[in-house]
Amino acid sequence: MTDGPAESTDNHRRGTGRLEAFSDGVFAIAIPLLVLELVVPSKEEAVGRELIEQWPMYMAYLVSFATIGAAWVVHSTITGRLERVDAVLLRLNLLLLFFVSVLPFPTKMLAEYAGSIDEERIAVVIYGINLFAISGMTSIVWRHASAEGLIEDAGAEVDVRAVTATLTPSLVLYAAAIVVGLLAPRVALFLYLVIALYKLIPFRTIFRHVGRRTAA
Amino acid sequence: MTDGPAESTDNHRRGTGRLEAFSDGVFAIAIPLLVLELVVPSKEEAVGRELIEQWPMYMAYLVSFATIGAAWVVHSTITGRLERVDAVLLRLNLLLLFFVSVLPFPTKMLAEYAGSIDEERIAVVIYGINLFAISGMTSIVWRHASAEGLIEDAGAEVDVRAVTATLTPSLVLYAAAIVVGLLAPRVALFLYLVIALYKLIPFRTIFRHVGRRTAA
Amino acid sequence: MTDGPAESTDNHRRGTGRLEAFSDGVFAIAIPLLVLELVVPSKEEAVGRELIEQWPMYMAYLVSFATIGAAWVVHSTITGRLERVDAVLLRLNLLLLFFVSVLPFPTKMLAEYAGSIDEERIAVVIYGINLFAISGMTSIVWRHASAEGLIEDAGAEVDVRAVTATLTPSLVLYAAAIVVGLLAPRVALFLYLVIALYKLIPFRTIFRHVGRRTAA
Amino acid sequence: MTDGPAESTDNHRRGTGRLEAFSDGVFAIAIPLLVLELVVPSKEEAVGRELIEQWPMYMAYLVSFATIGAAWVVHSTITGRLERVDAVLLRLNLLLLFFVSVLPFPTKMLAEYAGSIDEERIAVVIYGINLFAISGMTSIVWRHASAEGLIEDAGAEVDVRAVTATLTPSLVLYAAAIVVGLLAPRVALFLYLVIALYKLIPFRTIFRHVGRRTAA
Repeated sequence: MTDGPAESTDNHRRGTGRLEAFSDGVFAIAIPLLVLELVVPSKEEAVGRELIEQWPMYMAYLVSFATIGAAWVVHSTITGRLERVDAVLLRLNLLLLFFVSVLPFPTKMLAEYAGSIDEERIAVVIYGINLFAISGMTSIVWRHASAEGLIEDAGAEVDVRAVTATLTPSLVLYAAAIVVGLLAPRVALFLYLVIALYKLIPFRTIFRHVGRRTAA
Repeated sequence: MTDGPAESTDNHRRGTGRLEAFSDGVFAIAIPLLVLELVVPSKEEAVGRELIEQWPMYMAYLVSFATIGAAWVVHSTITGRLERVDAVLLRLNLLLLFFVSVLPFPTKMLAEYAGSIDEERIAVVIYGINLFAISGMTSIVWRHASAEGLIEDAGAEVDVRAVTATLTPSLVLYAAAIVVGLLAPRVALFLYLVIALYKLIPFRTIFRHVGRRTAA
Repeated sequence: MTDGPAESTDNHRRGTGRLEAFSDGVFAIAIPLLVLELVVPSKEEAVGRELIEQWPMYMAYLVSFATIGAAWVVHSTITGRLERVDAVLLRLNLLLLFFVSVLPFPTKMLAEYAGSIDEERIAVVIYGINLFAISGMTSIVWRHASAEGLIEDAGAEVDVRAVTATLTPSLVLYAAAIVVGLLAPRVALFLYLVIALYKLIPFRTIFRHVGRRTAA
Repeated sequence: MTDGPAESTDNHRRGTGRLEAFSDGVFAIAIPLLVLELVVPSKEEAVGRELIEQWPMYMAYLVSFATIGAAWVVHSTITGRLERVDAVLLRLNLLLLFFVSVLPFPTKMLAEYAGSIDEERIAVVIYGINLFAISGMTSIVWRHASAEGLIEDAGAEVDVRAVTATLTPSLVLYAAAIVVGLLAPRVALFLYLVIALYKLIPFRTIFRHVGRRTAA
């Protein structure tokens, strides 16, 4: 019911600034909080071996970091194009931030359940659903913004297609990885990392660089 | 006693920017901190069943997230209208942030007391008082800002009434839910969620959309 | 040794923006982190009585919140006057942020040591030294800024005196409260709250309001 | 794959603003999180003596604070010179933030392993590698930015050399301290603090001040 007053400031530039600042805050905090869940190997045992044995915990941390990092890059690309904010976008963005800020929970689950296959399966699937939800909500935020004409005009046509092109495949990939998780949890964990890196690594820019150098 | 120098910058635009940045920080941090309190079900027992049995804990997390999210939306609507900041507003806003940042404590209480009816009653009532205090302080911040003429002129008349119209009912609703909490704690928990969603979901915009489509 | 490049951007407005954003972040985070240390009374015992018995813990939380809040208000007043930033100011501000971010540690000490007089004495004195250090560093940041001419010209003369007038007395008050803490720890805890509230409550504005109403 | 759209906003000033805001958030949060790991001495034993005996824990906290503080100062110097952001810089910066946000983990290790020489050795070396990685990634971010011409023109030539001059020696120093850590862990811990302070303390500005006063 608070959307009445919100709408009349729609054209104000500040609306997008505030959305960015709040979102940046949630993204920035989710990352270091993940570290709090990392358990230091106990003194009694051989530290070196234990550090190696606990690899799923470190892997889960790495995947969560890469996923939140990739989500932030896409999010900043989207909000960098926003000309104004409407009442619905504000709420959809909140829902996206909900799934970002809840990620430390399945990360902790993964770390604690490592070892017994049945619990690992549950943890890996819940974790995958969370990753899927982050990608899905990013996609919904983007679609709403472009459908409602909240995006800057200049060059928008090309960009809308480019962003959409990157968002849909990752949803399909996450769905596939979750199915794999039901059979082989650790393989799925590895796939989650591959998807996050695929979203993070700027292949196109690298190829262009290499192309330029080869041509020269 | 530090209000002397603060007042002479009243007309400076930067005052409102700083207030927004600090408030955004507190709101943004309170949300992921809630996740830290969520306890992963212990490995020994049937994980699936335990996840279901611990629903009051997840419910409390959801209510806290929705409440802070709704409070942020109203807060950003208010500060988006602020033209300048005075010494009193700065302190009232600090008090609002106090109640926002303290919310993880009753959330944790709720999660830990789930199961025994007497303690649940205490936790649900304390939690409700915290939610009431967040709404109440938001209302006080808004009333002070409009009474002291700190709000932008353009279209203010209409907006002042619109914001006030959304703030007063939620106070009454929280008071009612707290009374319910004395008799049936879990019903009150459900009511808190309904109030937060009622504040969050932009019914008016949705109705207008539906109306437009039906007319077309 | 990194001060070379920093100095050449001195005149850039962005320097002060960055300093503000980073400081706001540390202030904003320190506040909700304090809540993490609050221990929920155990289920077994009478919750109501335990909540009352643990008052020094809640008191410590309240004092820390009020102190960080008051420090933020003074800090935002100072940086609101900054025209540019120099290499030394950046480091002095870091030291101030160090004492702000370390405050949850003596707060936790106070909460855990409540009950036995000897340990309470140590905790209350360490806590007081931390509060003194926050006030002291704020004062040093301010003195450096005004001595090096980093403050805006307009109305600076009057303001410099006003800010200085509020900073020195609180140092004396903290020193006195620490001495009291050696004899009567709980009295000192109460004094810390009084000092923070004295810094926070805008008496002058309130008196003027009351004066205006009485005259009318 | 999301670099397509990101590149077309390269010239937008907002890109650098968003990078700064997100980075400031991660730096600001990493600092107070370190305090959460500090364990309050147990009530039973002599508090005073225990506070002294646990010095490696407090030392580790201090080193981490000084290192993150120094990294923030260099980072804000670099981004203060950025004219635009490219897709690669965004990712390199994320990697730098990864190493900043992971620092609380080896800090906790150091605190817990204090006492037994073998585990201390492992902790001090892992900690040193983390510090080295923060310095190394800062250097890589800077080199990429200056190689790709993302830096402002005015006075850039001199500044590029100045920043580079401060980054390379610290890498060498960290490498040396890590080697020392294999033999004498506590000496290395002390060296880490010296390196951080060497990066933090603005010797040049101080010498100039002293020089000016001596000349006068």
